[in-house]
Amino acid sequence: MNQRVAIIGAGPSGLSQLHAFEKARLNGIDIPEIVCFEKQKNWGGLWNYTWRTGLDEHGEPVHGSMYRYLWSNGPKECLEFADYTFSDHFQKNIPSFPPRPVLYDYITGRAKSENLDRYIQFETVARRVEYDQDSDQFQVVVEDLKTQQEQCQTFDYVIVATGHFSIPNVPHLEGLESFSGRVMHSHDFRDAEEFRDRNTVVIGSSYSAEDIALQMYKYGARSVTIGYRSSPMGFNWPEGIKEVPLPMKLQGKSAQFADGTDQDDLDAIILCTGYLHSFPFLEDSLRLKTHNCLYPDGLYKGIFWQDNPKLMYLGMQDQYYTFTMFDAQAWYARDVILGNIALPEASVRLEDMTTWKTREEALSNPFEDIDFQTDYIKDLCAATDYEDFDLDAAANAFKTWEHHKVENILTYRDQAFVSPCNGEKAPVHHTPWLNALDDSMAAFLATEKELVVKAG
Amino acid sequence: MNQRVAIIGAGPSGLSQLHAFEKARLNGIDIPEIVCFEKQKNWGGLWNYTWRTGLDEHGEPVHGSMYRYLWSNGPKECLEFADYTFSDHFQKNIPSFPPRPVLYDYITGRAKSENLDRYIQFETVARRVEYDQDSDQFQVVVEDLKTQQEQCQTFDYVIVATGHFSIPNVPHLEGLESFSGRVMHSHDFRDAEEFRDRNTVVIGSSYSAEDIALQMYKYGARSVTIGYRSSPMGFNWPEGIKEVPLPMKLQGKSAQFADGTDQDDLDAIILCTGYLHSFPFLEDSLRLKTHNCLYPDGLYKGIFWQDNPKLMYLGMQDQYYTFTMFDAQAWYARDVILGNIALPEASVRLEDMTTWKTREEALSNPFEDIDFQTDYIKDLCAATDYEDFDLDAAANAFKTWEHHKVENILTYRDQAFVSPCNGEKAPVHHTPWLNALDDSMAAFLATEKELVVKAG
Repeated sequence: MNQRVAIIGAGPSGLSQLHAFEKARLNGIDIPEIVCFEKQKNWGGLWNYTWRTGLDEHGEPVHGSMYRYLWSNGPKECLEFADYTFSDHFQKNIPSFPPRPVLYDYITGRAKSENLDRYIQFETVARRVEYDQDSDQFQVVVEDLKTQQEQCQTFDYVIVATGHFSIPNVPHLEGLESFSGRVMHSHDFRDAEEFRDRNTVVIGSSYSAEDIALQMYKYGARSVTIGYRSSPMGFNWPEGIKEVPLPMKLQGKSAQFADGTDQDDLDAIILCTGYLHSFPFLEDSLRLKTHNCLYPDGLYKGIFWQDNPKLMYLGMQDQYYTFTMFDAQAWYARDVILGNIALPEASVRLEDMTTWKTREEALSNPFEDIDFQTDYIKDLCAATDYEDFDLDAAANAFKTWEHHKVENILTYRDQAFVSPCNGEKAPVHHTPWLNALDDSMAAFLATEKELVVKAG
Repeated sequence: MNQRVAIIGAGPSGLSQLHAFEKARLNGIDIPEIVCFEKQKNWGGLWNYTWRTGLDEHGEPVHGSMYRYLWSNGPKECLEFADYTFSDHFQKNIPSFPPRPVLYDYITGRAKSENLDRYIQFETVARRVEYDQDSDQFQVVVEDLKTQQEQCQTFDYVIVATGHFSIPNVPHLEGLESFSGRVMHSHDFRDAEEFRDRNTVVIGSSYSAEDIALQMYKYGARSVTIGYRSSPMGFNWPEGIKEVPLPMKLQGKSAQFADGTDQDDLDAIILCTGYLHSFPFLEDSLRLKTHNCLYPDGLYKGIFWQDNPKLMYLGMQDQYYTFTMFDAQAWYARDVILGNIALPEASVRLEDMTTWKTREEALSNPFEDIDFQTDYIKDLCAATDYEDFDLDAAANAFKTWEHHKVENILTYRDQAFVSPCNGEKAPVHHTPWLNALDDSMAAFLATEKELVVKAG
């Protein structure tokens, strides 16, 4: 049959897909020809840290939104690969909130162990994907950024794994055009050190605003004023961070907020205003158009493009679960392509989507959101042979984590969780997050004894 | 015949092209159907100032590289439209080095006077241009960014007027990945005020490095250290700016240069490392691939794509002349499309290109460069009815300007030149550039008397 599958992106979701196929192949199953196109020099998607902002060395939008000193903001136990646990990878039990280099090592470690790079064309960007009705195939134009040569290839399936935290959503706020300080989106935030002793405003009330405010506090910003539109995050912020309502009136280097709060000598305004689902390389009719939500319209099982299910999307949901969910989706997508799962007809798919969408619309708090996404993953896993793990335990871990954050936003990362995959309880980290200024893998993995020796 | 012409971009070169056709139409000549696609909300290309950096509100690369307080770095007399002088537009004689808002008003003023916006689809980006051999036409896919709807249209000619100072060339310098200050390209430079009291490094030795260093000096940076690769610009820099050789060793927030110069407490590194010619929307075989030079390979008369002369490029040269040259090119391109000029066959075109290229390769200093580009424009103008003006006078103005810069880089903008179009000598500006912190049109156009009244 010699079918061909294009995977666009070798970040976590693309790597999950490659791994799913590779696992089948290692089990003696015939798999289609797989080609993965990756814009960056290396795999890992968002988890590749780069000093670059804006456009990259080839003039392409920089994919990464990652900053130095980022530590996981959720317990690692809630994103663990069931078939490749953290203990499998590190050969030891590690704390629950690792910094970026540790997570990068983990995600790419599984891919490395299977040499998945042989499926990947690096520094190759998808320029144009069109569907040809006559042949029931996709024409995929890619460009090798090293040679600037284009190539058009034909595929039976296209899997979009390009993520949705790369293209910033940058609204205009009144006064920004005349503000003489720095204006930036969190996408371009790289190093909290840049803001030491600076007065900053953070606009937003979701994860980016929360974490960037904390980063700047941790690394010595003079002040962090968070402006929210509808409702505050409401954490017990330490002295030096405050949360105030928008709109903000800018004049010169001063800002005045709706509640009368003034901030003078403002150095920077950081727009933590989220990201766009953006797929300019897909022809219009193939393009998912959605905001960030738990059940984007038009994707059966959250994966299959309803108008043409040979086009698939991975990870396009708002995410509690991340790598775990990508694995579940990748297994399902693989099994459809391999013919192990037959897709029902369009009307049945629509009915299924409507059921989920209706449930999503009724969700009213994070705990219900967590249950929703847990059930979604259960539904996917029930249909495949993805390794068993205790999803209810993971869901409970998320809920406990939410409580920890409310209790103390500065210490929630010092907690330890139990793995839903192997039942191990994580050790408590040797250094509280607030004092852990070194985010290297060596520092994180060091034992207390090693740290004492080094310090001595 | 009803031929169709697509113009991609409504910046200065695209507007020159629209104006050239409109002028013909007003003279009673039948013109083809013209559609101009402009990514931005408004016309003016680079001359649109925006506070945005990186990606815009639609997730597209921000076109503008413009910063607040930019003043023309060449005499306005060397970029004057022969058929619409500065005096025509402002109804008075104005000084030789206007700030951005004044130039913006001038360029777009001519377009406005002819209502050229009726040819333009704003917020519409070219996604894909392909040539179809069978029909000898171009398929142009554009996306309306407001509605996210794509459209495919057929054209007989495509004119690429997207500029080449929009996509930053960002090399990797050793140590940038661990430098904890700010790293940015000049493309994202917006406001010198951001660098008041800061220690900065500027990398580069061309116009951006020169002007951004001066901007930061003018607006109070603590120090500006310019790192050059091959040779310094060598101006008589004021105290506070120095020019030192690369490579630079970065450690923490310190930089050490090849000559031993140290700079500690470094806040920002600004890469003034130029721009890429980047046309990702064109299929490979239509794509100009060149560095920034006076005679890019493969463009007959600097305009016509040798392999397919129905594809044209405007303004892709390194530029002494700017708007003047775009007009000359636009008139020539128009006259080829209208059939007034017959393109010779490929071998003759090649011979002509080779002659120019050979001359270009022998150029050894800016004065020869100026003569080269002057002759190039003369060659174009000789074939069309573009309004006569004194190109030799313009060339001499450029040479005088080069001398002024060498004499004093802080005062060259205080000089006054003679218009090659109407022979008027510009007045001396009421305020030396170094003291003119207000770059508004009102301040620039005010008479000394009005300034006194205002100050009083």
